[in-house]
Amino acid sequence: MDQGNKSFNTDSIPEPESSLARVRAIFEPTSVAVIGASQRRGSVGLAVFKNLLDGAFSGVIYPVNVRAHSICGVRAYPSLTAIGDPVDLAIIIVPAAQVTQVAREAGENGVKGLIVITAGFREIGEVGLAMEDELKAVCQEYGMSLVGPNCLGVINTDSRFSMNASFARRPPLSGNIGFISQSGALCTAVLDYAARKNIGFSKFISVGNKADIDELALLRYLHEDPETKVIMMYVEDLRHGFEFIDTVRDITGGDNPTPIVAVKSGRTAAGAAAVSSHTGSLAGSEAVYDALFQQSGIYRAQTISHLFDYAVAFATQPLPKSNRVAIITNAGGPGIIATDITMNVGLTLAKFSQDTTDVLRSALPATANVHNPVDVIGDAGVDRYRAAYEAVLKDENVDGVIFILTPQSMTDIYATAQIIPALAQKSGKPVLTSFMGELDVRDAIDFLERSHMPHYHFPEMAARAMGAMYRHFKWISRQHLAELEVAPDRTQARLVIEKALASGKTYLGEVEGNKILAAYGFPVLPSRLVGSAEEAAVAVRELGCSVFKIASPQIVHKSDVGGVRVGIDTEDGAREAYDDILRVVKGNAPEAVIEGVFVQQMAGKGVEVILGINRYKVFGPLLMFGLGGIFVEIFKDVSFRLAPIRHNAARRMVRSIQAYPMLDGARGGEPCDTDELERCLIFLSTLATENPEIAELDINPLFVHAKGKGCSVADCRILLDIDRMN
Amino acid sequence: MDQGNKSFNTDSIPEPESSLARVRAIFEPTSVAVIGASQRRGSVGLAVFKNLLDGAFSGVIYPVNVRAHSICGVRAYPSLTAIGDPVDLAIIIVPAAQVTQVAREAGENGVKGLIVITAGFREIGEVGLAMEDELKAVCQEYGMSLVGPNCLGVINTDSRFSMNASFARRPPLSGNIGFISQSGALCTAVLDYAARKNIGFSKFISVGNKADIDELALLRYLHEDPETKVIMMYVEDLRHGFEFIDTVRDITGGDNPTPIVAVKSGRTAAGAAAVSSHTGSLAGSEAVYDALFQQSGIYRAQTISHLFDYAVAFATQPLPKSNRVAIITNAGGPGIIATDITMNVGLTLAKFSQDTTDVLRSALPATANVHNPVDVIGDAGVDRYRAAYEAVLKDENVDGVIFILTPQSMTDIYATAQIIPALAQKSGKPVLTSFMGELDVRDAIDFLERSHMPHYHFPEMAARAMGAMYRHFKWISRQHLAELEVAPDRTQARLVIEKALASGKTYLGEVEGNKILAAYGFPVLPSRLVGSAEEAAVAVRELGCSVFKIASPQIVHKSDVGGVRVGIDTEDGAREAYDDILRVVKGNAPEAVIEGVFVQQMAGKGVEVILGINRYKVFGPLLMFGLGGIFVEIFKDVSFRLAPIRHNAARRMVRSIQAYPMLDGARGGEPCDTDELERCLIFLSTLATENPEIAELDINPLFVHAKGKGCSVADCRILLDIDRMN
Repeated sequence: MDQGNKSFNTDSIPEPESSLARVRAIFEPTSVAVIGASQRRGSVGLAVFKNLLDGAFSGVIYPVNVRAHSICGVRAYPSLTAIGDPVDLAIIIVPAAQVTQVAREAGENGVKGLIVITAGFREIGEVGLAMEDELKAVCQEYGMSLVGPNCLGVINTDSRFSMNASFARRPPLSGNIGFISQSGALCTAVLDYAARKNIGFSKFISVGNKADIDELALLRYLHEDPETKVIMMYVEDLRHGFEFIDTVRDITGGDNPTPIVAVKSGRTAAGAAAVSSHTGSLAGSEAVYDALFQQSGIYRAQTISHLFDYAVAFATQPLPKSNRVAIITNAGGPGIIATDITMNVGLTLAKFSQDTTDVLRSALPATANVHNPVDVIGDAGVDRYRAAYEAVLKDENVDGVIFILTPQSMTDIYATAQIIPALAQKSGKPVLTSFMGELDVRDAIDFLERSHMPHYHFPEMAARAMGAMYRHFKWISRQHLAELEVAPDRTQARLVIEKALASGKTYLGEVEGNKILAAYGFPVLPSRLVGSAEEAAVAVRELGCSVFKIASPQIVHKSDVGGVRVGIDTEDGAREAYDDILRVVKGNAPEAVIEGVFVQQMAGKGVEVILGINRYKVFGPLLMFGLGGIFVEIFKDVSFRLAPIRHNAARRMVRSIQAYPMLDGARGGEPCDTDELERCLIFLSTLATENPEIAELDINPLFVHAKGKGCSVADCRILLDIDRMN
Repeated sequence: MDQGNKSFNTDSIPEPESSLARVRAIFEPTSVAVIGASQRRGSVGLAVFKNLLDGAFSGVIYPVNVRAHSICGVRAYPSLTAIGDPVDLAIIIVPAAQVTQVAREAGENGVKGLIVITAGFREIGEVGLAMEDELKAVCQEYGMSLVGPNCLGVINTDSRFSMNASFARRPPLSGNIGFISQSGALCTAVLDYAARKNIGFSKFISVGNKADIDELALLRYLHEDPETKVIMMYVEDLRHGFEFIDTVRDITGGDNPTPIVAVKSGRTAAGAAAVSSHTGSLAGSEAVYDALFQQSGIYRAQTISHLFDYAVAFATQPLPKSNRVAIITNAGGPGIIATDITMNVGLTLAKFSQDTTDVLRSALPATANVHNPVDVIGDAGVDRYRAAYEAVLKDENVDGVIFILTPQSMTDIYATAQIIPALAQKSGKPVLTSFMGELDVRDAIDFLERSHMPHYHFPEMAARAMGAMYRHFKWISRQHLAELEVAPDRTQARLVIEKALASGKTYLGEVEGNKILAAYGFPVLPSRLVGSAEEAAVAVRELGCSVFKIASPQIVHKSDVGGVRVGIDTEDGAREAYDDILRVVKGNAPEAVIEGVFVQQMAGKGVEVILGINRYKVFGPLLMFGLGGIFVEIFKDVSFRLAPIRHNAARRMVRSIQAYPMLDGARGGEPCDTDELERCLIFLSTLATENPEIAELDINPLFVHAKGKGCSVADCRILLDIDRMN
């Protein structure tokens, strides 16, 4: 369990409007001072200043340097105060120990935004962390926004606010991808790679230590930015939980949605260790991040190259309106490979209309394949490609096209590339291309990329990108289920929790647990806590066939000490079982304080599932669902969501486990009451959200009975821990 | 179930020696005729002839063309016969209808090898198939070997036999990768891609329709070829089963092993359909190919780009001797990404010795990470990189190095690349590099590639390649378990099978099934077939607690008709159960012929598993193992192997399912008798291999009891089908 780091920025987020204004102070200044600008070859101070000068910035740039009279021929000032004119943005490159002082001076002079490139803060440990906190405090005092410290800087390619405030070696092309990176070094590699692939950016931000402006603020800003069509992120940690989901869900899936593709690294345990030693970040558990991304509608890429592959598709092509893909190729092998991946990512091969097949048959030679994937055959010239391409684009059964070319003796590579963009645009359907090879196809690929046609070296990546686009289409067009009603008896639940806390009790078994669950609407089985054999007999008379379990705060694993009897259905049996349990448990656990025997009605037939809560610092309660027993333990077949969840998420939680068919009547069984199960997940979410003292909770098992027959909580345990409350 | 295609080449394979000679006839001729050589621009006949002329072939090249006097200035001949001098190899490009005639003429003139580039054979259907069969017959008649038809040709870069007999647009660099492709078009793209990546080939073969020389013959040849260090294959279908495994296992894992990396396409159902329409190939089921590759020690790549990524590592680097990897980087993010993938592919981060850590601490600045992944920090010059690289290479706890560089302001990219090759070679450890970006790092990457240092755009691929190398190391150094003894009573089994076949019976239930299984050593439970209530009572007295099952050839699902009773343990109970079963079954299935009631001793406690056989044309019997019930049906958690298997494979079958912990004492259970389970898999393999009439067999369940207590067959069914025998 992640205990987090107490120094994290858990301040409440500013209101959206003010948050936007704060980011604008960074991206849209009219005057900029570079404090620590330098003439020294190879210095960051020179690199930043040169980039600004070369970057078509339309305002004024002031170099600040205590000793130099000019930098690159521009008059320099000994201090920010000495400039005299107003400065909107200060870029700070002075040694770490001087940064706070310089920031204060900036504040005094009315500067609105800071980019602190200097490293040596939080990432180096306690001393740096203290300096970073001080820097934050200064920014808050003067109402300045701050990017960094420990970053590469930011770049804006928007012609109105053109600015390269970074020490990147290579300026990006202008385009419509917004890029946010938590690794400065990765930025330089990404810019270099993008240049070669003709990929352009709208904004390019290295967030560094995120002392102030972080991903969430930037996502809000990029969503509003007319130049940004898709956002790429490289993330090592995030420091918001539900408020992140709540905001980003609207960015990716609300009105005017902006797709977001992210790589989150630090996936494995060892990877996580590397994160800590690198930026001192919280290495959030994989489950938390997977839930966070899923609930936010962020598409998670596995690698940096996939990040690009998806982003260029989103940046340039319309989304497919359904999942039926046409593949055109002049070679069988690549067509097969594309088909394989197409099927694997949840797409399907379009079945052409009779008209299309007729056109293809007349335009292509007899040996061609006129069905999908269309094989125009190795000796196809541009005419055959055009005929096939036009025909499938027109077909109403086609939602998107993957256009493959291999260079063969008769192939007119460049001319074939030229037919692609105009027809694609006219069709309103996404077209992804793969001209295979490197050297012979280079000019054609350059043409395609410059014409905003996504190109992939290998057709399998085109198919993957099409899959990502279709998934995003499903996300933005998803239906919202009617919300389920929850009317908890909060007073009752609080009473139990507060009484336990007051008495120093942190582990709650079924006696208190059932009271809390019942208060939130869970279907708990009728039960009694009994203190004598006679009471046990009465209980069985009233409840019918029952389970007996020892009730003791010291005993967590009741079966292990002989504290459980099942199927007690007579009064005599009840008396006998009561005495027997007490005798055996006292023998096995003489120290335990026995509160009595918990008599609970036997649950009817049903599938056993497990519901759980695990609370994380920063992210809040993570909900878990899965089938009980080995399915959890060996197959790890569970789904996670951060609370609170709504009906849609509850349904997806239930349906996304691999064993879902077992709840849906597989193997001739009756379908289970998944409606009630979804309600239970909503109860769980509400309970977790409203009672921050609950650090962990297991309902194991919950029986899910046949459709219409509901569920029954058969066992539960709760751990209270006020240290995990925020 | 794959029924295959009767026209496949299922001839027994020639002896290895003669097979090698046959392939040599293609790759090592001293004189070549190009029949169908042409002057026409853009024609294949011109492309092939030009390639041969330009390809440094040291023998004589004869163009054959009915009309032309010369081709590219070389004297042409109207026919092969007209040449007069001996010709070793004929490359045929004439129209399909004339190919057989030309082949016969070649045979008459003593030609030893043919490369038929012409298409229009088997891939176009019945007519083409007949022509292909005819061509094969001619080749057999004259003892000629044949590559194709319908191929791009072959290329040999060995300086002794240098020959480009293909119409590829671009000749490959010379190198030590052998490439075999079932798609001609893919070849051209691969050559183009390889040129850009400075990747060289030893032999390059487009196999086309594989009428004669196929992958197996080529793998044997390439294994013997001193120029070939690793083999890359693109496969759509294979046409050998166990003999393939038997040969290739020695190639990849015997003396002087040659690693093989393959992409097999046609994975999904739709992909498979595309295979059929493309080359008329058998789309073998995924399970068959996965088993085939695993048992052969072939590393299966998911995509063509992965194929390259693995092949260059195998071609140039020694294998890691264990799984401890050191990562060196000048940027945290890429180090984290590499670490993530490293852990995911079964490698681990090396823990450095104290010496190494000391050296790193003295050579690197205080902010550097001196543990793995080593972060030399963004401003590292070549000296810091060299110090770190030398130190980790020397460390005995390091088995391989991933060397990452991101271009930052102070980075000396080219000089850093230059320190890599010599130290790597001296160390005897594999070093893989990732200089991130494209343009700024281009020269350094070219240097690395030309120095035979594998380079990857993104560090995750370097980690994957290291994982593949380690997996291959484990394969070549694997221990061979002592074989288990099998002493079947073959006569008994044959008797049962032949009697059933003679009476036209194809479905065998437990009565016959148990006899066959018992004959092969399976632990079947004691049982009787009884014909009266009294016999049933006697059976229960002798066997103890028993299961009663109706015995009828018409009834497959016994429970569905009320034909099963369990836990019968008294003589009275036995009489009652007997009468009851007969009455109920007669009511539910009045048409069924009742042979009696099968009384079987109840199995003791154990984990239920399923063992099965499915026989495929060409590939023979596929064995299956998994846990019973939902584990098979929902999780599809099963493992497959082609029979026959040995002890090693049996153990891997058992241990490779996800649910294996359930057999190994998970959840506090007792460990099961997996030794006996492995024996049962060997029995199953022997049974399947020796009795080709068994098309399908299910043992479901087999109970696996606690360690030392063996297994029990609790139910089985067998389907005989002589049509699937080969």
